[in-house]
Formats: sequence, C-alpha cells, structure tokens
Amino acid sequence: MGDPAGIGPEICLRLLTNAEVARQCVPIVFGDAGVLRRVADKLALPFDAPVFATATQCREARGPAVRDLQCIGADDFTPGKMDARCGEAAFRYVLASIDAGLAGDVAAVSTGPLNKEAMHAAGHKYPGHTEIFAERMKADRSCMMLTSPELTCGFVTTHVGYHEVPGLLSEARIRDVIELTAAAMRRIRGREPKLVVCGLNPHAGEGGLFGQREEERFIVPAIEAGRAAGLHIEGPLPPDTAFLVWRRKQTDAFICMYHDQGHIPLKALAFDSAINTTLGLPVVRTSVDHGTAVDIAWQGKANANSLFEAVLLAAKLGGVPAFHRQDEPVGGTPTLR
Amino acid sequence: MGDPAGIGPEICLRLLTNAEVARQCVPIVFGDAGVLRRVADKLALPFDAPVFATATQCREARGPAVRDLQCIGADDFTPGKMDARCGEAAFRYVLASIDAGLAGDVAAVSTGPLNKEAMHAAGHKYPGHTEIFAERMKADRSCMMLTSPELTCGFVTTHVGYHEVPGLLSEARIRDVIELTAAAMRRIRGREPKLVVCGLNPHAGEGGLFGQREEERFIVPAIEAGRAAGLHIEGPLPPDTAFLVWRRKQTDAFICMYHDQGHIPLKALAFDSAINTTLGLPVVRTSVDHGTAVDIAWQGKANANSLFEAVLLAAKLGGVPAFHRQDEPVGGTPTLR
Repeated sequence: MGDPAGIGPEICLRLLTNAEVARQCVPIVFGDAGVLRRVADKLALPFDAPVFATATQCREARGPAVRDLQCIGADDFTPGKMDARCGEAAFRYVLASIDAGLAGDVAAVSTGPLNKEAMHAAGHKYPGHTEIFAERMKADRSCMMLTSPELTCGFVTTHVGYHEVPGLLSEARIRDVIELTAAAMRRIRGREPKLVVCGLNPHAGEGGLFGQREEERFIVPAIEAGRAAGLHIEGPLPPDTAFLVWRRKQTDAFICMYHDQGHIPLKALAFDSAINTTLGLPVVRTSVDHGTAVDIAWQGKANANSLFEAVLLAAKLGGVPAFHRQDEPVGGTPTLR
Repeated sequence: MGDPAGIGPEICLRLLTNAEVARQCVPIVFGDAGVLRRVADKLALPFDAPVFATATQCREARGPAVRDLQCIGADDFTPGKMDARCGEAAFRYVLASIDAGLAGDVAAVSTGPLNKEAMHAAGHKYPGHTEIFAERMKADRSCMMLTSPELTCGFVTTHVGYHEVPGLLSEARIRDVIELTAAAMRRIRGREPKLVVCGLNPHAGEGGLFGQREEERFIVPAIEAGRAAGLHIEGPLPPDTAFLVWRRKQTDAFICMYHDQGHIPLKALAFDSAINTTLGLPVVRTSVDHGTAVDIAWQGKANANSLFEAVLLAAKLGGVPAFHRQDEPVGGTPTLR
C-alpha cells in the first residue's frame, strides 16, 4: 500500500476495482483496511473488497482483496504530511509482503511508494525497497530491470558513483545480468528474447583505442558464455548506437553497464513511466515508478497506471498460470507491452 | 569535398544547386573540378558553377563556386574503392579550407566525409578532422557540439576511455564548454540561450551519496561562474531526467560531461542526423554526420541533407550577415532548427 500519507492508499483502491488487473491476476493489497476505508469515504470511491486477517487467506482468494495488517489507525496521521508512524507502517507492509511471498501465500509482490524520510525517521535506514528485499531474501545474485513501452534495460551496476563502475565489472557479474534478464524476458515475451549488450567506453572502446579494454576483458567473454548457453545476444555495441530506433524495434532487452547508460534513453523516450523490477530474488518484485506525491495525496488526482502496470508485470513474471486466458499460451503474447 | 571515391563529390554537386543554401550563404566546394565533372557526367547532374584557381577569388564570389585544388586526376581512381591517393587529396582539401578560413577567404568551413583508412594509407595518421583542425589552428580551448532537431549538446570530454572522465573534469574546462556553447547558441537562436548542465554521477551524486563529489567540486562552481557572467543555466541535473521531453522543449543546449551522456539521447531521439561542430576554433567548422558510404558512392543514391544542414549551420555560426533576409534580424530566428 506504500506510505499511508501518500498516494498509495487511493491508487490501491483503484487497483482493487480495475477490470484488466482482475482478469490477469488476484491483487491483494497489504496495508490497513481502516486507512483504505477513510480515503474511500473522502474521495467517494467504492471499497467492497474482502478483508483478510491472516496471510494464508490469500491462498484461497479468487478476486481482489485486502490483507489488513493493522499497523496504524485510520485517524492517527494527517494525509500529505511526513510522519514516522506512517514510515513504520509502510515498512511493515513491505516485510509482510516479503514473508507472504517466501511462504507462497502470494506469487509476486509489487511495491507502492515509500516515503524514505518517514521510514528513516522510524529507525529503518534502508536506501529503498531493493535493499529491504535483498537483505530479507538473501539473494546470491540479483539485478535491476527497468521496462517501458519503448525499451527494457537490465543493469550490471546501478546506484554507485561514476568512477566505481569499471572496478565493479566482471565476466561473472555481466553473465548473471544477461541470464537474469533473458529469463525475465522469456517469461514476458513467451519466446527466446533478443538481447543487446552495451559496451562501457565510447564506440565500445573501438578495439582498445579508448578505455582499459573492459569490452575485451569482461563483456565479450560474458557474451560468448551466454551464446554458448543458447542465448541470442548482440554486442558489445557502441552505447550510443545501441538505442537507435530500428535496433530498439528488434531488441527485447538491453544490458547496460551503468545507471545512466540505460536510464538516459529510458527517460528520454518514455511516453509513460517505466516499471522497476528486481530480478533474481526468490519472489518476483516490481515497483511503481513514482514517489508518494504528498502534494496531491488524498485528493483523487493520483494516476494509478504505474501501479496497474507494475502489478500486471509482476503477475506475468510471477507466472500466475490460472489467470492466463484460454486462447493464449502460458507466458504467451504480451498483453502488457 | 571529402574523399573523391566516396559520396562527397555527388553531394557537393547537389549543394552547388541547392536554392536554400544559396539563399543563406555562398557555398564554395574545395576539391577537384575534374572529379566533380566526371561524377556530373556519370549521374547526369548539372555542373555550371564557376571554377576558381586561387583562394582569394573566393572573396569575390557572389554565388556557388568551386575552388579547384587539382590534387587528383579525374580518372586516377575507382569510385567506391579505398585509395591512398584519394586519402591524400581529401587531406589536402581540408588543409586548403583551413588556410582559406584563417586567411579570411571564407567565413566558415564544413567538412565532407573522409575515409580514415585512405588518409592513414597516405601517411596522415589523424583520428579525424577535429585533430587536423585543432593542430593547424592552435586553439587554446575548443569543444565539440552536436546539434539535432531534438537537442543540442556541448561536450566537456569526448573520445577518451570511460575511466578517464573524472580526472579530466575541472571548473575551468566545464566553464569553457559552457561559454563556448552559450556563444554558439546565442548566434543560432539570436537571443540569450537556456542551458542545462548535467551531473556526472547517477542522480547528480544525490548530495555526495554517489561518486567523488564531482558535482560540488567542479560542476557547481563552473555553473555559478557562468551565472555570475549573466548566463541562464540550470544544473547540475541528474543525467537521466535532464533529457525528459518537457525539459528538452525549454532548453537550448545541454552541457554533457562525457561522450555517451550526450550521444545516447541524441542518437536515440534523432529522426534525422546530427551536425557536428567544433567550437572555439578561429574558424567555424561543422561536419556532415556520415561517412564516405563507398557502397553507394557515385550511384546517385546519396542523400545530401546532412551536408546542407552542416553548411547552413556553418553560415549561421560564421556570421554571414550579407545573406540574412531583410525581414530577419542578424543572427535572428533560426531557419535551420
């Protein structure tokens, strides 16, 4: 549900009544039923979903529902205001969803917007969701994938300084990201995906002219290992020509060496927002691409599309076969993008 | 004229008869008149421009013309084939154009496509035009600017390895690139331009969280110096949100810290090609954005638009006031982009 004082509760209400989401999966909001009822009253939105007192009830759910965690009273905070109690509640929703995923009560998790400041004020000093998931799930390899209608990128490195990137590259790490991204795209596309791996240096090093031969030392061996395992991979390509429009049309995902190599084209091209996915965890996790938007919270103005997209992608990656249409192969034609 | 065996000669013929180019400047092709005549005969294109035997004749020109350098015989090479003699001729055209620019015989230079391999075979081991110009013109500060209909970028560093970039940043260098780019955009737009300066690290370092505080140490002081000098500058911005569509519409040029930071969005967004300009030289230099395209050379298939754009931009940056329309202020409304 995300932070109670942000736009999380109202977009979750909209999720519970979205027909396309209900057609593809069973969405269960992990949060406070009292808070959802208060925002529903304020905005005159319907709230008829069943409320579960235990996580195991999720297993039997056949339609949208709420797992009521009773972390905060509906009137104990002011909508739109940073509050440590809200940060504590939001943190506990996340932990409960992780535990439900690990227990098999739910097939995948999508996270709503956290207020990092509120969570820190509550004593939980995580930089964000990713680190909470990684710590609680003890994944031995994982990576971030961002997907938008225009392009999808898997990241070898993310939130580190520019100068640290060359030292973090290795054949093993690049190979992990290639494999994780290929597996995710195979599920999304329902066929073997086509990947492009970017170089690190301008012109992908131009045969050793620029850089420290990172392409030859790390990237080429990782690509060759992936090809030997049967993957379709092109690269290492010059980073600037990798994202040309004709190549985007032929490519299912790009493997990027650093944060801005993929974030720059994603954001420059996005007509809509991108969905953030953490790959390699024991439980699939996707995330909305926006913050708590406290300036418009509880006013009925918040757009829930990013949450719908995040949930639909989680359902696809989590593999919810019961909810595939009869006329569509499992993991078949992407309905999402 | 570029390499005689490439598409340079035929696109130069088209330049000589282009009405829009002739309206805005006096284009003079530095090359071999015999080669131009041969390709005109082969492709049944007109070639009526006057031919000059000396550079000083360029000063008197009132319409499109050819400066005949007689570097290679019209039948001494095979179109579409790499040839050291062609590399030598193309190199000499460039030197002659630089000297004509320095002497004031021409107001600006646009370079056609070189065949680097042919030029190297002729004994001239330059990586490209930029280095020939920089060496011959002894500029104390210069930078590359790339401009496309979607966006324009000035570069603090270009053809260096990824790892070298942080060590090449300094307040003075960033300030130079800001000033050179602002001056060029002032000429192109005919008003004070709006600049955005990108950070180096993800999220522009997020207050020192990522990186070595390059933003605080080098970029912020350079921006403050530029603002103190009256420039409109925003930044340092997170590199990925710098290029969002709404911000592109409000920004005349982006200052990029490294090659791919600007080349990735330029190429991902370009519907057309970008024009390369070297700023800070005593003579303005622009360049086509394509190679010699030997596979289609001398067949009449080559598109001359990039050359037209490069010449029009050179005329604007070189400031050819006699050719501004009466209804337009000098350096006024951009007709180009």
